[in-house]
Amino acid sequence: MSEYDTISAEVDHEEEIPEDHPRYQDLLTRHRIENGVEKGITHLQGMHAEGRGSAFDYLLGEETIPSADEAERAAAAHLLLADHPVLSINGNVAALVPGEMVELADAVDADLEINLFNRTPERMQAIADHLRDHGATAVKGLEADARIPNLDHKRAKVDADGIYEADVVVVPLEDGDRAEALEEMGKTEIVIDLNPLSRSPQVAEVPVVDNIIRAVPNITEHARDLADAETDELQSVVEQFDREEALEAAEKRIRDGL
Amino acid sequence: MSEYDTISAEVDHEEEIPEDHPRYQDLLTRHRIENGVEKGITHLQGMHAEGRGSAFDYLLGEETIPSADEAERAAAAHLLLADHPVLSINGNVAALVPGEMVELADAVDADLEINLFNRTPERMQAIADHLRDHGATAVKGLEADARIPNLDHKRAKVDADGIYEADVVVVPLEDGDRAEALEEMGKTEIVIDLNPLSRSPQVAEVPVVDNIIRAVPNITEHARDLADAETDELQSVVEQFDREEALEAAEKRIRDGL
Repeated sequence: MSEYDTISAEVDHEEEIPEDHPRYQDLLTRHRIENGVEKGITHLQGMHAEGRGSAFDYLLGEETIPSADEAERAAAAHLLLADHPVLSINGNVAALVPGEMVELADAVDADLEINLFNRTPERMQAIADHLRDHGATAVKGLEADARIPNLDHKRAKVDADGIYEADVVVVPLEDGDRAEALEEMGKTEIVIDLNPLSRSPQVAEVPVVDNIIRAVPNITEHARDLADAETDELQSVVEQFDREEALEAAEKRIRDGL
Repeated sequence: MSEYDTISAEVDHEEEIPEDHPRYQDLLTRHRIENGVEKGITHLQGMHAEGRGSAFDYLLGEETIPSADEAERAAAAHLLLADHPVLSINGNVAALVPGEMVELADAVDADLEINLFNRTPERMQAIADHLRDHGATAVKGLEADARIPNLDHKRAKVDADGIYEADVVVVPLEDGDRAEALEEMGKTEIVIDLNPLSRSPQVAEVPVVDNIIRAVPNITEHARDLADAETDELQSVVEQFDREEALEAAEKRIRDGL
């Protein structure tokens, strides 16, 4: 944790972070999360979770490893094949990749739905405004007129015409209980998480072990690349992806990379 | 990072965290850091640094490994042998182990000195008050009438009769630049840090790769155990400790433990 403090906390705008800094991505991530906390978008605990993620990213080598790229391509194919894909947004996701999530939603024609662990009307509104500032035209999650079964009341709130009826959901940085409950609903779940041993990637059909700031733009890129693909080509991308292999490759990289 | 969110953020007092919870130490740590941020003791970045540390602790198995226990015994011996030992306190240390640092200072007759990366008069005062609430009678660092050489002005501030003239310093969760500058001043440095590859433990005479909430009470325990030891016994504890071996053992545990 010590190397951390050597980075100035006094950058006001992310443009001030030099792009050639060896820890550019990490600085950018911390800056966006800190801004998120200050704006009331991100819960204070999100800062802690992000720090935890950054340690795993450090061990991964802070790059998209080949198995993660394959997972991202499979994610894109799933989203393009879906009848009703939904991208779930929590406080960290909103702080880190608001514009990137809007772009992905556009590329695969998905809904954006806010879904918070620590849900308050103020945070819901702040995040909806933040997403709209980044180009979102429709934001779900505020109705909360349905419930995920087998999950305690507060965390179970979803929109009936959003996550509740979605067939494919992208749940980045999701907690294990909720990831499991969504999986039990029979949804195809794409989880983005830097710890391959977490419960969320373990239960996901597509575990993406990568930093969300790299993963989301890369899924979008694959989606654009596959935009004109036939259904059977998309299905073959989906089938070629091996989730166990991807989880093992990430774990191996974390071990050996150190 | 996902497992993280499954823990309620709504615990008001640490007594509410069940001691038999499998992640008790982690919950306690997060709770104290969050409280620290809310009280103005801990910088928001401290929450991130702590999250990063917690990932390494998870990989270590969340326990004091044998090489860390040896480092903690060597730290106790160094402190007992010192002419003028000083324990350095930053925002995370103050939030996590205020009472434990006061106890260690008592056990080895050391000074407590506040030394912040993001120094403001308000934070200095809040931390001094917090330490006094936890039993400290004297707190250094507010004078700031000396400078650590070869370090930029703001981070270099120390007390002339504190860290500046200390022979042995305990610097937990310290940034690499400052750890290096203190080492260059010829001080015997005891660093507590969960990442064995960080620059701070790499430059320290005694790198303690352990969670501070376990490390500090254990150093105190060793100090009490060694309180009546002769100088040559203390020196032999110091000499038996092998810093390279300790760093390697920690790295190996992080790798294999996963």
